[in-house]
Amino acid sequence: MSKKEKLVKAITSRDEDFSQWYTDIVTQAELSSYSSVRGCMIVRPYATALWELIRDDLDRRFKETGHENVIMPLFIPESLLQKEKDHVDGFAPEVAWVTHGGDEKLSERLCVRPTSEVLFCDHYSEIIESWRDLPKLYNQWVSVVRWEKSTRPFLRTREFFWQEGHTAHATAEEAIKETKDILELYADFFEETLAIPVIKGVKTESEKFAGAETTYTVESMMYDGKALQSGTSHYFGDGFAKVFDIQYTDQENQLRYVHQSSWGVSSRSIGGIIMVHGDDDGLVLPPAVAPIQIAIIPVAQHKEGVLKKAAELYDLLKENYRVKLDDSDRMPGWKFSEYEMKGVPLRLEIGPRDIENNSCVLVTRDNREKIIVPLEELEERIPGILKEYRQRLYDKAKAHRASHSYTAGSSEEFFDLLENKPGFVKGSWCGSANCEAEVKERTGATARCITNDKVTDNDVCMICNEAATSHVIWGKAY
Amino acid sequence: MSKKEKLVKAITSRDEDFSQWYTDIVTQAELSSYSSVRGCMIVRPYATALWELIRDDLDRRFKETGHENVIMPLFIPESLLQKEKDHVDGFAPEVAWVTHGGDEKLSERLCVRPTSEVLFCDHYSEIIESWRDLPKLYNQWVSVVRWEKSTRPFLRTREFFWQEGHTAHATAEEAIKETKDILELYADFFEETLAIPVIKGVKTESEKFAGAETTYTVESMMYDGKALQSGTSHYFGDGFAKVFDIQYTDQENQLRYVHQSSWGVSSRSIGGIIMVHGDDDGLVLPPAVAPIQIAIIPVAQHKEGVLKKAAELYDLLKENYRVKLDDSDRMPGWKFSEYEMKGVPLRLEIGPRDIENNSCVLVTRDNREKIIVPLEELEERIPGILKEYRQRLYDKAKAHRASHSYTAGSSEEFFDLLENKPGFVKGSWCGSANCEAEVKERTGATARCITNDKVTDNDVCMICNEAATSHVIWGKAY
Repeated sequence: MSKKEKLVKAITSRDEDFSQWYTDIVTQAELSSYSSVRGCMIVRPYATALWELIRDDLDRRFKETGHENVIMPLFIPESLLQKEKDHVDGFAPEVAWVTHGGDEKLSERLCVRPTSEVLFCDHYSEIIESWRDLPKLYNQWVSVVRWEKSTRPFLRTREFFWQEGHTAHATAEEAIKETKDILELYADFFEETLAIPVIKGVKTESEKFAGAETTYTVESMMYDGKALQSGTSHYFGDGFAKVFDIQYTDQENQLRYVHQSSWGVSSRSIGGIIMVHGDDDGLVLPPAVAPIQIAIIPVAQHKEGVLKKAAELYDLLKENYRVKLDDSDRMPGWKFSEYEMKGVPLRLEIGPRDIENNSCVLVTRDNREKIIVPLEELEERIPGILKEYRQRLYDKAKAHRASHSYTAGSSEEFFDLLENKPGFVKGSWCGSANCEAEVKERTGATARCITNDKVTDNDVCMICNEAATSHVIWGKAY
Repeated sequence: MSKKEKLVKAITSRDEDFSQWYTDIVTQAELSSYSSVRGCMIVRPYATALWELIRDDLDRRFKETGHENVIMPLFIPESLLQKEKDHVDGFAPEVAWVTHGGDEKLSERLCVRPTSEVLFCDHYSEIIESWRDLPKLYNQWVSVVRWEKSTRPFLRTREFFWQEGHTAHATAEEAIKETKDILELYADFFEETLAIPVIKGVKTESEKFAGAETTYTVESMMYDGKALQSGTSHYFGDGFAKVFDIQYTDQENQLRYVHQSSWGVSSRSIGGIIMVHGDDDGLVLPPAVAPIQIAIIPVAQHKEGVLKKAAELYDLLKENYRVKLDDSDRMPGWKFSEYEMKGVPLRLEIGPRDIENNSCVLVTRDNREKIIVPLEELEERIPGILKEYRQRLYDKAKAHRASHSYTAGSSEEFFDLLENKPGFVKGSWCGSANCEAEVKERTGATARCITNDKVTDNDVCMICNEAATSHVIWGKAY
């Protein structure tokens, strides 16, 4: 089968088989390939460009708020990983171990970092001496490795790509503020940049990060009603500082432990973009991270003047947009499908008749609306068209979430909803891990996050009917 | 000892002990720290910012010439690494082996990539089908691991950071052109962006990359006369294509093997910047990659109007430059030393008298020239001052190389020069690996590259006195 036939082949409908639809998009939009290492993916050029745009947007936000990038080693000595008990219990079962360098057996095993808390703590204990050295607001962009059993591109792979922020502060208040500020930064990134609405909340004890005092999370809902934990921000208190002896002398010359945070967003966010915005014709990308924002397709390009005008428009637009002019010998229909599959927000068609009318046709990816735009208005019109497009993506995702969100009034209703309705179910909870476990066992759903909603005396736990201590969003998750 | 005292402490003179001088700069400019993993470094914020600027400059050049980024897995299965014989012989002795995932022993060992030729080849054999798929011009920015015995920050570390380009072409001619084009791109990057003069040439058989037909190199000379191999570009012919079965159907529907290249520049370039431009007061950075291009130091900042004016200048300059305003409570003298240590190209001093005169003082890092600039001319003057500064760095490095470069007329002179004069020695060579080995044994020097110079009948090998086949630049190297 030729590449051309493959590309115009319809993909599985997302309502028919969501999982196959996802795989089809990953393959046909050329986002990733499986590699010769089981569970590790090859990130292909289009997805790498997408990831670089995600990175640049987040990185700008980090730097604007005073954070600095560093690069920590890929490896962690076994003894260092084992220093903090909860942390090692959480990660040791799923790390990859290096035992040999060349022909030589290492005197101590090294794990490939599954996350880098202990490396940052070790470094902070070296470089932090006085209050003048605080806060330390470090971040790194790296890959990490967790030896997962079953994997899916972008959602769960043995090697994945992320940023991990690690900060050290003089006081608990400052560290908690940082943890929460980053949660807001993440929420804004998902909502504004990716057009993905998120729910902010706190993880339960059983769902929080290994070693954290509190884990904050932003959760988003995919088209199939399942949750994607999209970004997390952890407050560590001084737990790691005590284990790693990270102390500073304050302005009164007293030795004090630092308080820390860590936080991360990963290449899972690409999976989120696919599953929130994509449709049966392929990807639908938010403009801020679309590797191609405008695809210019000449129509009847053999006719005099068409390619010349298309090139003129390309030159005009490329200053401010990521533009692709496709003047290959494929048919326009093939090109339309191709850039729809790739989720390009705007298609610009230009043919002999358009040139005669001194206009062009813009087609928005999400709703296929055809907008005829006089060429002299083109530059002026595009920002508004892209802004409305992003807003439609966001509104649609928010409406979808609303129509798949429920509040349970009774235990019966609670389990019925979780078992039979894809989506989020809000239900009050007593705070017991046993109740959480029961929900998971019976329905496969987990506590996504604890909300800020007030608990009244009438609220009871949806599982055990004892008095409730919080309201929780429950759902199945990726 | 307080941090303040540490920073104003003079570093070792580079003429006294070059190696200690290098270590002092790495430590005191806060470029890197040793980590808990022997031979792996922590890249601290200042060096990470420098590396990001190097990356962005090269990445722009790659993208402008049609290259795309991808991300390949961190691991290579042992059987895949072993497919190409020369390649595995070159790398297997120095790779780190992963043997366990969690508690489970892997059925096949994985090495942490020392370089990624085999991964790209494996992928190319999957995705290349027809002439329409060519050329493939891929690059990735990653870290690689080689289990070196002795290490030095940036110059030789077990984990290091680089870009590796891997391309596949329809014909040998196209692949050779790519290999050479990239060499020119690298030369331009080193000379224009880093102000480091380079010599372009070809590696000898013994020095070429494991698996390559031809290795091109750019070599630069450090202050101590030693060479740094700064970037290499390899032509592979169809050797890897035959082993990995990378074939395409051409326009006549014939199956053909692709021809390939690979090329890389690494975090060693940071070592090169230190050792080419640095002086006894610390780093001297080329403007294009300086994380701080202008440091604004208020003088007598407690006096009315000084901080306000300094902030005004900061706001004025930050649009077009990377500017740092240091209004901390340190003394101006401490700040002067600090930003000299960090190699900041321009220092801008602003105090009460300057404000009175409506001017400021600019001091260039390399020659400490004080330039009094009227404030209304500031924006207009800076580009020229930075341009001249870069040119001085380049000219100085080139003059230093010229004064440490020799041409040997006889075998006696050849060995005398290599043994007693730090620098490069040009000497004709018969092409035999035995002669190369003899030079290395007697002097520690290696063939840095074969030059383009014409060989005449009178030229004899500096080692064996047989007829020469080429002129070679010899030198000790990092």
